[in-house]
Amino acid sequence: MAKKFSFTVKVYYEDTDSGGVVYYANYLKYLERARSEAIYTCGFTNSSILEKFGVLLIVKSCNIEYKKPAKLEEILEITSEIKSFTKTSFLMKQTISRDNEIISDAEVHLVSVDKNGKPSKIPDDLKIKLEN
Amino acid sequence: MAKKFSFTVKVYYEDTDSGGVVYYANYLKYLERARSEAIYTCGFTNSSILEKFGVLLIVKSCNIEYKKPAKLEEILEITSEIKSFTKTSFLMKQTISRDNEIISDAEVHLVSVDKNGKPSKIPDDLKIKLEN
Amino acid sequence: MAKKFSFTVKVYYEDTDSGGVVYYANYLKYLERARSEAIYTCGFTNSSILEKFGVLLIVKSCNIEYKKPAKLEEILEITSEIKSFTKTSFLMKQTISRDNEIISDAEVHLVSVDKNGKPSKIPDDLKIKLEN
Amino acid sequence: MAKKFSFTVKVYYEDTDSGGVVYYANYLKYLERARSEAIYTCGFTNSSILEKFGVLLIVKSCNIEYKKPAKLEEILEITSEIKSFTKTSFLMKQTISRDNEIISDAEVHLVSVDKNGKPSKIPDDLKIKLEN
Repeated sequence: MAKKFSFTVKVYYEDTDSGGVVYYANYLKYLERARSEAIYTCGFTNSSILEKFGVLLIVKSCNIEYKKPAKLEEILEITSEIKSFTKTSFLMKQTISRDNEIISDAEVHLVSVDKNGKPSKIPDDLKIKLEN
Repeated sequence: MAKKFSFTVKVYYEDTDSGGVVYYANYLKYLERARSEAIYTCGFTNSSILEKFGVLLIVKSCNIEYKKPAKLEEILEITSEIKSFTKTSFLMKQTISRDNEIISDAEVHLVSVDKNGKPSKIPDDLKIKLEN
Repeated sequence: MAKKFSFTVKVYYEDTDSGGVVYYANYLKYLERARSEAIYTCGFTNSSILEKFGVLLIVKSCNIEYKKPAKLEEILEITSEIKSFTKTSFLMKQTISRDNEIISDAEVHLVSVDKNGKPSKIPDDLKIKLEN
Repeated sequence: MAKKFSFTVKVYYEDTDSGGVVYYANYLKYLERARSEAIYTCGFTNSSILEKFGVLLIVKSCNIEYKKPAKLEEILEITSEIKSFTKTSFLMKQTISRDNEIISDAEVHLVSVDKNGKPSKIPDDLKIKLEN
C-alpha cells in the first residue's frame, strides 16, 4: 500500500478572488506546499535534494478537477500519494478535502531533472522514503 | 473551423520562482487572462455576463502540460480555442508559446453556472460570438 | 504593555522569485496572514466580524522596510502589535524575523469600515481582545 | 523636471480577493511591473542590467497608501517618477490611477546592489536614461 502524506492549509484573503472563492490557480500552490511537506516528512528539503543529489523535482503535467469551491478561512486537508514510478519520474495523486469531503483532486506528474533540465534518476534514498 | 483567440503576456518577477523559471501555478493565471480577453473580444466582460445573463463561467477542470520553462522578461503568446460545447459547458484548448514554439498546453473545461453555482445554459449571444 | 501576537510561516516556491529570494509583495501576504491569525486568537474571524458587527478591517497604508532577504524553505516568525487606536482605526507594528533577527518590519494602518466602505467604530468586543 | 513613466494594467480575477477588490499586496505587483517597464523604456531589462553592469535594483522600502479600491476588469494607470538619487539608490514616487483619479500612491526606495547584495553605484548609462 502506498504511503499517504497529509498536510493542512487555511484559506487566507490572498487565496480568494472576487467570485468569493479560492482562485483556481491557487489550489496548485496548496498542492505544491503539500508536496514540499511530503519531502520534509521524508527527511529532505528541495534545497537538500538539489545539493546532495544534484536534482530538482519539476512538474511535467497537472490534471486538476474542481468539484466544490473553497472559501475564506476554511481549513483544507491535502493528501498526497504516489501511484507509480519510472526511473526518472513519478505520478502523484493529490486530493483537497474539507470536512472529509474531497472538493478537488489532481494527478501530478513529477520529473527528476539535473541542473540542465535533463531527466535524471530519482535518488534511491529519496525514493525509498517516498515509498515506505 | 473554430475561432482562435490570441493574447500576449510578459513575464515579470511576480511570475517567477527561485528555480529561475515561471512558477507552475502562474501559467494558469496567464490562461485565465487570455480567456477573459477572449470574452472582451466577443464584446462582453465577466461582469457584464453576470449582470446581463446571471451566469459565471467557472473552471471545472484543467489539464496542463509543461514542455519548456519560461523565464523572466520573456514574451509569451497564449492562444485559446473552443473544441466543443455542451448546453452548459465548453472545452477550451489553450497553448502558451514563445517564438512560435509551444512551451505549454492545456485543456480547460468551463461550465456556465448561475449565482447558486448550478449549471446554467450558456447564453446564446455569448456562444455565437465565441464560435464565429 | 501592548499585546503581542506571534505567527510562523514557511517559505514555499510560490513566495520566491527568480532573484532567489521572497518576492517583495509576498511579505504583505505573510503580514495579512499574521493579522488574520491575531483575530482568530481573539476569538473572531474576518467573516464573523463582518457578520456580527457589520464591519471589515481594511488596510489604509503599509510602510514596509526590507532589511535582509528571506529564502526558500526558511521559517519566519511574524509578530504583530497594536501601537495606537482611534475610534475607527489602529496602527499595527509588524516584524518578520528569522532566527530571532528582524529581516523586515512594517507599520500598517488599518481602518474599520462598514459595508459601504465608510469608517465605522471598531467593535468594543474586538478592541478589548486586541488590547489585552 | 523629472521624467515620468506611464504604464497601464487591467485587473484580472487573480488580482482580486473575496472582499471584491484588488488584494492589497497585489498593488505592489503593479508597481513592480511599471518599474520594469520604465527600465525597458530606457533601453534596458532587469536581466541586461545584471549582465552588463553586474547590479540588481532591489526594493529597500515601500510606503503605500490605499485611497480607493480597484475592482475586477478596471483599467489602471501607473505613473513612476524618480524624486531623488544617491550614488547607490533612488527614491521613486508611483501613483495608481483610474479615470485620472489617484486611487493609491507609493514611495519606493530602490537600491542598486551587486551579486553579493552589497550597495553598488547605479550604472551611469542607466541613471542618465532614468533622468532624461
